[in-house]
Amino acid sequence: MRDDGHINSAEIIAIGTEMLLGDLVDTNSAWLSQRLAMLGVSLYRHTTVGDNRARIVAAMREATSRSDLVLTTGGLGPTSDDITNECLGEVAGRKMVEYPEARKHVDEMFRRFGRKPTPSNYKQALFPEGTELIPNPRGTAMGAMLEVEGTLFATFPGVPVEMRGMFEETVEPLVRERSDGSIISRTLWFSGIGESALAEQVQEFLDASDPTVAPLAGQGKVRLRITARAATPEEAAGKIEPVADEILSRLGDYFFGEDNETLESAVGRLLREKGVTLALAESCTGGLLAKRLTDAPGSSAYFVEGLITYSNEAKERLVNVPHETLVEHGTVSGPVAEAMAEGVRKAAGSDYGLSVTGVAGPDGGTEDKPVGLVFVGLADAEGARAERLDLTAWAKSREAIRERSANRAFDILRQRLEGKEGF
Amino acid sequence: MRDDGHINSAEIIAIGTEMLLGDLVDTNSAWLSQRLAMLGVSLYRHTTVGDNRARIVAAMREATSRSDLVLTTGGLGPTSDDITNECLGEVAGRKMVEYPEARKHVDEMFRRFGRKPTPSNYKQALFPEGTELIPNPRGTAMGAMLEVEGTLFATFPGVPVEMRGMFEETVEPLVRERSDGSIISRTLWFSGIGESALAEQVQEFLDASDPTVAPLAGQGKVRLRITARAATPEEAAGKIEPVADEILSRLGDYFFGEDNETLESAVGRLLREKGVTLALAESCTGGLLAKRLTDAPGSSAYFVEGLITYSNEAKERLVNVPHETLVEHGTVSGPVAEAMAEGVRKAAGSDYGLSVTGVAGPDGGTEDKPVGLVFVGLADAEGARAERLDLTAWAKSREAIRERSANRAFDILRQRLEGKEGF
Repeated sequence: MRDDGHINSAEIIAIGTEMLLGDLVDTNSAWLSQRLAMLGVSLYRHTTVGDNRARIVAAMREATSRSDLVLTTGGLGPTSDDITNECLGEVAGRKMVEYPEARKHVDEMFRRFGRKPTPSNYKQALFPEGTELIPNPRGTAMGAMLEVEGTLFATFPGVPVEMRGMFEETVEPLVRERSDGSIISRTLWFSGIGESALAEQVQEFLDASDPTVAPLAGQGKVRLRITARAATPEEAAGKIEPVADEILSRLGDYFFGEDNETLESAVGRLLREKGVTLALAESCTGGLLAKRLTDAPGSSAYFVEGLITYSNEAKERLVNVPHETLVEHGTVSGPVAEAMAEGVRKAAGSDYGLSVTGVAGPDGGTEDKPVGLVFVGLADAEGARAERLDLTAWAKSREAIRERSANRAFDILRQRLEGKEGF
Repeated sequence: MRDDGHINSAEIIAIGTEMLLGDLVDTNSAWLSQRLAMLGVSLYRHTTVGDNRARIVAAMREATSRSDLVLTTGGLGPTSDDITNECLGEVAGRKMVEYPEARKHVDEMFRRFGRKPTPSNYKQALFPEGTELIPNPRGTAMGAMLEVEGTLFATFPGVPVEMRGMFEETVEPLVRERSDGSIISRTLWFSGIGESALAEQVQEFLDASDPTVAPLAGQGKVRLRITARAATPEEAAGKIEPVADEILSRLGDYFFGEDNETLESAVGRLLREKGVTLALAESCTGGLLAKRLTDAPGSSAYFVEGLITYSNEAKERLVNVPHETLVEHGTVSGPVAEAMAEGVRKAAGSDYGLSVTGVAGPDGGTEDKPVGLVFVGLADAEGARAERLDLTAWAKSREAIRERSANRAFDILRQRLEGKEGF
């Protein structure tokens, strides 16, 4: 913290051996990071350490020299390995004292649960002398706020719902008051273009620093995150807008949505806007498209049905793929993908039919039909077409082949719904 | 690393501004942590820093003084903010040189994708002089292994499927050779019993320290991880065995598998062992059961087909649910779940039919049929039965309702296949 008491930089220390053993994924740090970004506080580091006094104290000491604000999660429970507040006391050079307000809180919470506290529960009433308590209406563990050499520490329990409430109700208002300005981000999502090809078209923005533009790629999708800092959220958004507009004017054909949009939510939105319906026939994706499409609430408005035709017999019976087509071209072929898309569209009476057939592996590949060969079919009132995907580069990952097949299938349908000739 | 070259301590540095902004949850560190624990390597710290040269270099320098092994994830891409290997070069005091083998790899991967590399892609062929390359058969970014002042660094891309393969194929064998002793874990998975009820039956093991037994619960499943440390893997396994045997003798009815077993893989294994087949009819889970069942390679041996009957019309047409049953009992009802299970079993000609119908929310609930009310149906040659699930406690999470419904459906089938009367 600078002398004026402003909070402009922060870091997070997650405390718990279970994270170092890989038994628990730390989602608290991501949540706190988002909140700090919105408050305009720059976050420089996440650190995770185990329930070990020397290592917790070392991590706290290092952070003191670097950041205005240090948030810790975990280690506020009643057991002997919960030592976060004791470590904070050691770093601050303050002795631990019992806070009557915290003792009363433990009693009250236990009464609410209908249980009796044991002596160890009152450990949760001990804090370094001079601490300001952070109320926790959802659990027994109150948090501590304490300044150490100009750095403000705030300790939170590891239980996400308790930590989030305490941050929002007590710490966030304080940080908002003391931070300079806001950081705002907008994320643009693209599909059908590789990360480096995309980067080359917008290189000058990637090299710029206000706003910053950062690419991230995975499973056939690329996103660009545009981030600006300004005195107010409105001013930051105003810096982002012209950059986003220019990027979209260059890459609009590949753009499918903003922020939390996914390919399937973009497809769902377009189907709903147009008042049209979709049916799915899946082979190697085995329900993945249907699962993703129905992750969104309200999908029954446009999703009629999905048929997982794993066997050839099911392809003939359920979606009327002609026996001769299967024999002549093989299960994994363009004509079968077309017939599946058209068959499910007719059977379901939907506007669109989308299909996937392929070899997801790791077994079942042949020289002619290797693992990673996939066909996507799309049918509408105009007829059916199929696209061949070569995913042989991911032959060692069944998951990657299935995810990428689903992404491409959704993207083909998205382009058709947007009136683009994607394929 | 000590002078004898042994690797006994490690830390992980995750690199990427997206994690500090909370846009991405770091799951790589948890995965690597689990692997290191199994190898007997003590992990002291996870650190996350952004794509910032000074901060990456600082984190690497700090780690050098603490740990035998440092694993980094992220920052190996072709764009200008991908600087992990350059930072490693700075820490090691080595200049960056092009590795012809890595350049060839970039060319080969691009040829496989059917695209042309741009000049920026060849950045992925630059490594600190003296680096040993980590092959990456799944992507363009090879990793670097380099010793700095007795600490071994290994850099990995952030894409989980690439990082995991590279760790398993190259780094893990090396660490196994150089680590002292072994930590061995066995995980026992249970379903159909709550965490605290389970914990009460094995409390003395949870309180013990060699081996340790740790419970972890989620989405209707509970696991117990038994961990022992010893000079050899055999000795560690020998400590675990009597504890596992005693736990299973008390809780065997709820046990469904070990280690990486899932409910769906347990079901797949049992179906295969018995040489019987399954068909699915899903409503609110929308393909989730089929997707999970077909995550396993070779599932076509026992999975015949899946029908996602989202609409009532599809329930009548595809799985012959009588119109009167739908009208009389409603879509979300035991009789409809039974009719769906029986209908899909008959249509597919399979030995078993499994069905789910429910209100996954967040909308669509009524007083009679609230969000979280779900019915699971199971049909075999003896007839069909349905179970009512009350998941109203998770009414705010569509995902939790769908996951828990799928878990219970698989568990009901598992118990039937094991000859237990689960329902």
